Amino acid sequence: MTSLNFQIVPAVQATEAPPIPKAQAWGCQYMPSPSAPLLDLSQGVPRDAPHPSILASLSKVASDPKAARYGPILGEPGLRQALTQEIKVQYFLSGQEVTSEDVAITTGCNMAFLSLLMTLCPPGKSTVLLPLPAYFNHTMSLSLQDVKPVYVPCEPDNMFKASLPFAKSYLASLRKEGGDKREPRMIVLVSPSNPTGTVYTSDEIKLWYDLAREYKIALVLDETYRDFVEGESGERGLPHRLFEEPDWRSTLVSLGSFSKGYRIPGHRLGSIIASPELLRHITTICDCMQICPPRPPQIALTPLLPSLRPDLLAASSQLSYRRHLFKTTVNSVSGWKVISSGGFFAYVQFPEDYIYASSILGLERKKLGSEDVARVLALRCGVVTLPGSFFMPPVADDEQWDDILDCGTLRQDEWLRFAVANVEDDVVLSLGPRLKLMNKIMGVDDEDVTQ
Amino acid sequence: MTSLNFQIVPAVQATEAPPIPKAQAWGCQYMPSPSAPLLDLSQGVPRDAPHPSILASLSKVASDPKAARYGPILGEPGLRQALTQEIKVQYFLSGQEVTSEDVAITTGCNMAFLSLLMTLCPPGKSTVLLPLPAYFNHTMSLSLQDVKPVYVPCEPDNMFKASLPFAKSYLASLRKEGGDKREPRMIVLVSPSNPTGTVYTSDEIKLWYDLAREYKIALVLDETYRDFVEGESGERGLPHRLFEEPDWRSTLVSLGSFSKGYRIPGHRLGSIIASPELLRHITTICDCMQICPPRPPQIALTPLLPSLRPDLLAASSQLSYRRHLFKTTVNSVSGWKVISSGGFFAYVQFPEDYIYASSILGLERKKLGSEDVARVLALRCGVVTLPGSFFMPPVADDEQWDDILDCGTLRQDEWLRFAVANVEDDVVLSLGPRLKLMNKIMGVDDEDVTQ
Repeated sequence: MTSLNFQIVPAVQATEAPPIPKAQAWGCQYMPSPSAPLLDLSQGVPRDAPHPSILASLSKVASDPKAARYGPILGEPGLRQALTQEIKVQYFLSGQEVTSEDVAITTGCNMAFLSLLMTLCPPGKSTVLLPLPAYFNHTMSLSLQDVKPVYVPCEPDNMFKASLPFAKSYLASLRKEGGDKREPRMIVLVSPSNPTGTVYTSDEIKLWYDLAREYKIALVLDETYRDFVEGESGERGLPHRLFEEPDWRSTLVSLGSFSKGYRIPGHRLGSIIASPELLRHITTICDCMQICPPRPPQIALTPLLPSLRPDLLAASSQLSYRRHLFKTTVNSVSGWKVISSGGFFAYVQFPEDYIYASSILGLERKKLGSEDVARVLALRCGVVTLPGSFFMPPVADDEQWDDILDCGTLRQDEWLRFAVANVEDDVVLSLGPRLKLMNKIMGVDDEDVTQ
Repeated sequence: MTSLNFQIVPAVQATEAPPIPKAQAWGCQYMPSPSAPLLDLSQGVPRDAPHPSILASLSKVASDPKAARYGPILGEPGLRQALTQEIKVQYFLSGQEVTSEDVAITTGCNMAFLSLLMTLCPPGKSTVLLPLPAYFNHTMSLSLQDVKPVYVPCEPDNMFKASLPFAKSYLASLRKEGGDKREPRMIVLVSPSNPTGTVYTSDEIKLWYDLAREYKIALVLDETYRDFVEGESGERGLPHRLFEEPDWRSTLVSLGSFSKGYRIPGHRLGSIIASPELLRHITTICDCMQICPPRPPQIALTPLLPSLRPDLLAASSQLSYRRHLFKTTVNSVSGWKVISSGGFFAYVQFPEDYIYASSILGLERKKLGSEDVARVLALRCGVVTLPGSFFMPPVADDEQWDDILDCGTLRQDEWLRFAVANVEDDVVLSLGPRLKLMNKIMGVDDEDVTQ
């Protein structure tokens, strides 16, 4: 291999590699059998095929030469309008609270986040408040852009909700200290959360909005999983009431995705809802990044969105049932416990004694962490999950890390993220025997547990 | 409109807005008639529909639920392999000079460029050597990333070839001066060029490669239009011989696009050919930017590439004929002259006297520039082009600009870029009367000219 005769940017070199391929490689080492196939609950992907009307429309549009041409930078006007309509329905809006001028289409929600980061956070000079555990692509994007994360600890005892008092006192301390340090520019909340599944209430989100507003920073809500917020009586739930704030555009940026609700991640469509003034800058970045989002899926979806509302609702309640089934199944296995769940994910604590099982596995004597456990669970039991460590920063490299450990809430490394949306109900049921097998491998007594 | 309660990154604020919509807006103000329709030669887009086999394959794949799922970050292995095969054919390679490990698929070539810039050029600390006139998305990407362009003047008298002596003496002067200034990290060449159409020979490209190698910086070749390099006797031409260099991976990065040759810009597929070591870093950025490129067009194209070679060749020779027709047509109009052409574009000098025509247009007394002329040509004659000024930096804002003006070669602002690939041959012929009308409007005598 020839070595490079030019240099790589240090921030890029320092950024962790994407973790999903690592977990998938563990799965590839498992020897599946007809009675014990590989169960992949790693990446957050919809299990089911897109609605037949979407597939038919995609197929029709893809054969149209006109759809192969460039489109507008921020997406098709028709889709921006159609998404505005859906937002109005989902957020129970009756007026002009959100218009199509507030909506941009991007090539997936990761691009939405990265373009926003580039727009709001000067490299080397800014910070972002990021609840921990954090979605790894957010952490990676910050690292690539040399923007420092200020981790806000989430509280496992409170369904992994991010600590508002921590964020408040952090921002207040900055105000007191003054100085020319890096400035906070964004607060990021993911609701329903990736990785923990935590769903914030309207009232909780309003408190974060007020905090962002007070400190003149942007509240960035990643609402990739908003279609899976449960209502109180079976309807789709209201994610938050911020669009009713008369000046929401001054502070709020809402990111969305077509990948999860409409089950088309491979087609790459996401969205940003924000002030047109902000979108003007996003236009410049998106022109350099995407020129336009992929056009055929935009054109294909535009006329369908209203007709797909029942499908979204059905998918949401099906997933709600699956999460319930998952919780019952997992909690019935000795030592396993679902700590929080919502949207596509469940965050699960594995048996405490696992961390002392290194000798059973023939490994050198050490405390096992979630990555060891996830690896064994994939290799030996054919269940691919993502270890909690993938959503945490490397311990050694960050001075703030010590402070957070001192909060006492995130000292543990005994969680796994299960992407519950990836699999059918029968697969969820079959997790019971797999986890029991895991307990056997790890030398943990498997008493019957009823919860 | 609520104003923003948070700040925008200065580098983003300072970046020029995308210019294409501006030119298209001029076109919208033209009143077309059946005998004088709007002729849009602004954006570099293929006029013809994709090959029927592509449309059929796209349509079939789009109806497959499997294609709606996520794919690998750097693209489908099948497409990376298929593109490798095409590269071997086009560059007359017989061995393992390029393998699929050297190939990445991106969501268009702009993304390829931006991800590369993020990988090689630290914001605020680096420069890029960029021939001027420059593709505006390159200039914009540099500006967004706070990377300073060092403009290398192109020589209108030499078919707008970039001045190698200028680049050499610039780099040599840096070496002498030393110090802690911004460091050059990339030389960018676009061949065939956007905007000028200039095609560099293999030998010329080799000289640029040697220069980059000597100074340990990357040579980034944007080869978006490589399918339209003419061979000597009607075959597709050899863009360059750099892949035959045993250590090309140490210095060369080649960017490509599926948009032009396969006529599918709306589907958004581009490529990077580079060292796997570099691609490992690009993977990290692409995971945060695209997760994966749009999957259906990748799967649809994979089996087709070899069968599309005759179509590429036919399109290339058709375009070659169209450029010839364009040159004859434009040069036959008094005062108009095609200075260079190749690939999708022709760079055209308009009559000298136009710059004194402000009073005829009822404008305030000033020297007219290419933007004024392009606007009048669109509004009054229905021909949308891009003015040369779109490919030049704002005069006032850049100290280096004075040096380049002093080179004497780029003082003029009397060029227009025509995207010749956008239109049929009959449209090219109809440009003659339109340009004559323009001459009349501008008060320029329209004698018959034969060249």
